[in-house]
Formats: sequence, C-alpha cells, structure tokens
Amino acid sequence: MPTNRRFLLQRRPQGDPVAEDFALVEAPTPDLADGQFLIRNHYASLDPAMRGWMDDADSYMPPIPLGTPVRASTIGVVEASRADGFTPGQWVMGLNAIEEYSVGTVGGFTQPIDPAAVPSITNYLSLFGAVGMTAYFGLFEVCEPKPGETVLVTGAAGAVGSIVGQLAKIHGCRTVGIAGGADKCARLTDRYGFDAAIDYRGKDEAALTAAIAQAAPDGVDVIFENVGGIILDAGLMNLNMGARVGLCGLISEYNSTAPVGARNLWRLIVKRASIRGLLVMDFVARFGEGAAQMGQWAAQGKLVVDEHVDEGIDNAYPAFMRLFAGSNQGKMILKLA
Amino acid sequence: MPTNRRFLLQRRPQGDPVAEDFALVEAPTPDLADGQFLIRNHYASLDPAMRGWMDDADSYMPPIPLGTPVRASTIGVVEASRADGFTPGQWVMGLNAIEEYSVGTVGGFTQPIDPAAVPSITNYLSLFGAVGMTAYFGLFEVCEPKPGETVLVTGAAGAVGSIVGQLAKIHGCRTVGIAGGADKCARLTDRYGFDAAIDYRGKDEAALTAAIAQAAPDGVDVIFENVGGIILDAGLMNLNMGARVGLCGLISEYNSTAPVGARNLWRLIVKRASIRGLLVMDFVARFGEGAAQMGQWAAQGKLVVDEHVDEGIDNAYPAFMRLFAGSNQGKMILKLA
Repeated sequence: MPTNRRFLLQRRPQGDPVAEDFALVEAPTPDLADGQFLIRNHYASLDPAMRGWMDDADSYMPPIPLGTPVRASTIGVVEASRADGFTPGQWVMGLNAIEEYSVGTVGGFTQPIDPAAVPSITNYLSLFGAVGMTAYFGLFEVCEPKPGETVLVTGAAGAVGSIVGQLAKIHGCRTVGIAGGADKCARLTDRYGFDAAIDYRGKDEAALTAAIAQAAPDGVDVIFENVGGIILDAGLMNLNMGARVGLCGLISEYNSTAPVGARNLWRLIVKRASIRGLLVMDFVARFGEGAAQMGQWAAQGKLVVDEHVDEGIDNAYPAFMRLFAGSNQGKMILKLA
Repeated sequence: MPTNRRFLLQRRPQGDPVAEDFALVEAPTPDLADGQFLIRNHYASLDPAMRGWMDDADSYMPPIPLGTPVRASTIGVVEASRADGFTPGQWVMGLNAIEEYSVGTVGGFTQPIDPAAVPSITNYLSLFGAVGMTAYFGLFEVCEPKPGETVLVTGAAGAVGSIVGQLAKIHGCRTVGIAGGADKCARLTDRYGFDAAIDYRGKDEAALTAAIAQAAPDGVDVIFENVGGIILDAGLMNLNMGARVGLCGLISEYNSTAPVGARNLWRLIVKRASIRGLLVMDFVARFGEGAAQMGQWAAQGKLVVDEHVDEGIDNAYPAFMRLFAGSNQGKMILKLA
C-alpha cells in the first residue's frame, strides 16, 4: 500500500503565511467506501483564493479545518474505484487538496476530463479551469465591456489577468495592464497584447493615478480588479462615467494584518460607477460555453496561456508563496506526480 | 440700493472647515442684464455634498472658486426681472449660493415653484428637493429593494436617511437605521418607523458588526450608505447574497485628511454584492414622478419630514458645521430672509 503525502494546514496564518503554518505528513492511502474512488493527484492548482480559505472567516466556503490538507483544485487519474462512472486510468478534475491521493465521491465536485481535447492536461487548471472561466465570465458578464472602451486590468500578468487582457483585446477594447516589474510589463505588451503596461513598483497612489491617466487618455470604463489597495484607489481616480469595476480579488490585502482599504470610493458617486464582486462558481452551468469559445480562440492563436509548474509536494509552500511575491510567470501549478 | 451680504469661500478647508475658511462680506446688489432676474434668497439648503465642492477636486461640479459665495440650492422671490417668464413676487428655486441676492438667468437651473402646492415653501429643499429625490430615486432605482428584504440606512437620522427609511418601510421592507446618540435612535424608531436603531457612538467595527447582525437577523439586502468608514465596513460584514449598496455619501470621510477607507470590500466577492454610486442629478427628468408619489404619501400621513432651520446668514458657518457634528435634527436649512 503506497503512503499518501499530504500538505496540511496546521495553524491559521497571521499575515504572510510562514512555513510553520503547514506540515507535510505521510498517511495511509485511504480505503474506499461504496460510491467512492481513489484519485492519484498529478497536478494541484495554486490560487490566491486559497489564502482566504485558510482564515477562520465566514466566506463562500468553510475555512480549511486545521490538521487537514490544504484545499485545492487538482487533476489526477483514477487509481481504484467503487463508483459507477469512474474507472481506473481515467483522468478527472475536482476540488480536492494538496495531497498525493484524494478520495472522490459520486455526485461530488470531481468530474471526468478528456486529455485528447486539450494541448496539455494542465490546461484544465488554467484556460479551461476556474482561472479561465473567471476571466471569461468575470469580464463579459460582470464588467460588460463594449468594443472601443478602455479596460484596466490589475494583476495583469497573473493567471486570470493575462487572460482577461487578451479577451478584452479580442473584444475590441483598449487594454491597460498593471504588473510588478519591467519583465512582467514587457510580457503584458509583447505576449498578451496589452496596449499599455504600468509597472506599479516604486509608485505611490498619485504616481499610479498619473500613470493610468497617461496610459488611458480617454479614461477607464472597466477595471478588472485583482489587487486592491492603492492600485484600486488609483484606478478609481481614472473612472469614466458609468464605469464598472469587477472585483475578482484583493491580493495586496490578503496577507495584511492592517489592510489599506479603498479610500477613493467617492469616485463611484462622482462617476455613478459600480464595484461588483464576482465569483466563478456562479457560472458553473455555463462553463461549457466559455470553454468552447476560449478553446476556439486559443486554436486560432488569439489567446496564449502561460503555466508556471513547480515540481513536488515538498515545494508546496514556496510554490504557493510565489503568488504573493509575484515570482510566478503564468498560472501557478504544483506537479505532484 | 440694498447691499448683498455674501458668505464667501476664502480658503479651501483642510480637514474640518474652520470659520477662517469663510468670510461674510457686503457687496452691491448686482445689476441685471437682459435675460436675467434678481432673486432675494429666503432659504439656503445646507448639504454634506457642499463640503466636496469646497475641495480642489475633479468632481461632478467644478470646485467653488475661492473668493466667491458658497454654492447652495436656494429658495427665493424674484425681486426684479429682465427675463421672460420670471416676474417680481414669484417664488423660485435654483442652484445659487449663500447670499442675500442671486442673479438668475433664463435657461439656467432656477425654476418657478408653487407655494400653494406644499405645506411649507421650505419643503422644496427637503421632500421635494434634491434631498427627497435622492432618497426616492436612490432607494428605488439604484438599490432596488424588494418587499420583505432588510434595508440598512446609515446616517439614518439625516435629511436623506430619514426619508429613505420611511420609503423602504412603505415598500414593505424591514428597516434598520444607524445614527449617533440615544435621542436620534429614539427618533428613528418613534418618528420614522425604523424597525431597529443602532447607536454607532462608542462602537468599534466589531461591535457595529455585531449590532447590525442582531438588528438584522436575516442579513442585509440593501445598504443605503451615507457615512462610510467603519460603519460601511460593518455593513459589508452583514451582506446577504446579491446585496446592493447604494453609495450616496461618505460624510465620515469628507473632513478627514487620512480617510479610513473600506477594508471589507472582499465581502462583495463572497456575497456577489455591489456598491453603486448614486447622484440625484441623473434623475432630474423624473423629479415630477418622485414628487407626486412622495407628496401623496406625505398627505396620507405615511411620510414625515423634519427640517432644521437656523436663522441668518451670520450663522452660515455654524449651521453648516451641524451636518458634521450631527447636531441638526432633520434637513438643514439656513433662513436668509
């Protein structure tokens, strides 16, 4: 019987997660009950939202219980099954955890996936996973950009942001991306086709506000917000009348014990603008539609997707922390097998 | 020729306005050109929004130029006219300034009003003015409450908030109001019919959050926000799924040189909720509709409106500052004649 290495949440992080908040342990591979199947996880998705799941907060999912493995979307292969519709050798994707083996249940979140339908099986964690669907439905359904409008994307070099920028461009919008560092900014324009890129490093709110004004001389009609703090505040200063802010994430605040907050909400009054929270779960029933459309654009070469794969469950902690340091280049994935 | 006493903005306030930011001066009564008429102002409306007009900020109106009288809605009587449609003795309302005499122009914002149509001519600055219309259209058009939902009103004892609470109640909502002090809270329940009142004084964000949870056990579906800061943050912690926050004002932040900001925007994601800025100017074309409906409710005794009238242009500064101290009881009006 193989053992199951599991990456546990041992303690709720205070501010920045530290290595001691987690523990890598070995456990027996679980037994299966009727209706269950054993998944050998090959890839785990690492996402900023997981930081929120580590807090003891009332949210859209219960907190990860202490002493259990860190919840994550995974891709794996069914290794054993006592469940109809799941057979050994079959690829599956589901909301599981950072561990070598997970147990799936019929009627749960784990679903079969087709490796022949995608260039790489990992695309189910990027373009065809929550990340891609967040970009697609968040932009088109929540932000409702019109061709010719200017779309500002924060965290633009990240997994979601890089797709949002490309989708907005395909839609006929002017796109401005904000990211940290010259390399990422070059990637925004050269690889993701942003019309302009702004490096937030070394800029205070006033400098960011001026940089956005320069990059978006006609003002900003849509913000796809992944960051929060002074980056959001600077965006708010550049809104056009009736602008829409789709609030996808606030990564700059997640590890902060004293969040900066949004101090320029008064701009919403001046510009009769709105901020709307978005969560990909609301669009699950329409994932097929989003995947089909994005698959087509990807096949036409209009949409590139980058994945940053770190190897080994031993590296779960440093790989996760890349998200906050911004040292990943593309969708962060941990290879487990 | 009478002189014209005018309450000038002499200096842009830094934080709390101080008396020295203003000056009361005497000027000659202005001469009229063709198409103009002279208004003897009887009442000036004092509103929190005027604080924003004093800043040198890009907003929905240009800043009040230094050395000119403080912009305000006024009610007055035409004293002389070189304009068709405006005759001496006629009551008019318009966006003028805190001064004894203003000059109106045909085609400008000043319009005739009918004193016979209202219990008190001052009602044109409260129920039938920007305040009442802000409450009516802000609540019904921007917040879209449904009967049975819970509506939280902040600044609930204020001019707009007290009307919003009554309108929500008429609409069949549960209403919770937040105000400062026991007297105001008693007024919320006893006079404006709120189902529950919360005194924000002495409460930190956690205590406010708990107090709202207790007063709104089914959660909050709509916030009509006039205050901002920790009061907004506490409201955000109590949102229901799909909740709507209508952002009318942020009075707690207007005089702050270091605004608190909103630190709980992440709740918008969790609850797929939205914050939308609202400004009454957008509904000018529908004021007749709003006035007719509210006039009917008022005549039926379903809607009470309080006005707090201070006398004399000499008192313009202390009367204005009541808005921030919360020492007014109802719509703040300055009597000029």
